[in-house]
Amino acid sequence: MNREAWRAEAEATTVTRQEESDMAKFMDVHSGFVGVTASQLREAHERDLAIESAEGVHFERAWLDPDSGKVFCLSSGPSKEAVLRVHEKAGHPTAEIYELPIEVE
Amino acid sequence: MNREAWRAEAEATTVTRQEESDMAKFMDVHSGFVGVTASQLREAHERDLAIESAEGVHFERAWLDPDSGKVFCLSSGPSKEAVLRVHEKAGHPTAEIYELPIEVE
Repeated sequence: MNREAWRAEAEATTVTRQEESDMAKFMDVHSGFVGVTASQLREAHERDLAIESAEGVHFERAWLDPDSGKVFCLSSGPSKEAVLRVHEKAGHPTAEIYELPIEVE
Repeated sequence: MNREAWRAEAEATTVTRQEESDMAKFMDVHSGFVGVTASQLREAHERDLAIESAEGVHFERAWLDPDSGKVFCLSSGPSKEAVLRVHEKAGHPTAEIYELPIEVE
């Protein structure tokens, strides 16, 4: 690799890292989904996935407790506001969201 | 594979599936962890991991929002009560837990 190609790749790598560091992880919580089925949750989740890229958001997973009606959505994105805008545009708004800078497994 | 070996494997597979179907997934929520650090969360999580097997529980991941003090723990196990007993014995009890029979990604 010549010097210019090396420099171009180094700059590209720097940009990628910068973009990654601008992404945070979030958990948002919805209430009132009592009795919702797996296919209904999938349909709602797919409405998020269809429009999330416009906000730089990605919804990774969602879990539902149909007895209590709670839904937990794990996402990554640039801000709480961006995540909530996707949910609002997809037709299932919530105001309850937490940024999660710390994760263990 | 002869017939007996096949039957033994088929029975072993059935048992594994049965065991898996007895395990449910849960999200529990803790409040009051304002300002907790990554190493403190890891220490708390490792106290769960050290004793979880006695209850047939596994804590898969935990996420912390140190601003609001919320912690979300994703686990699998035989019952809500078993999960909560592990947390209680580890020194960080909570009463807020949801069973999650439905998951999408």
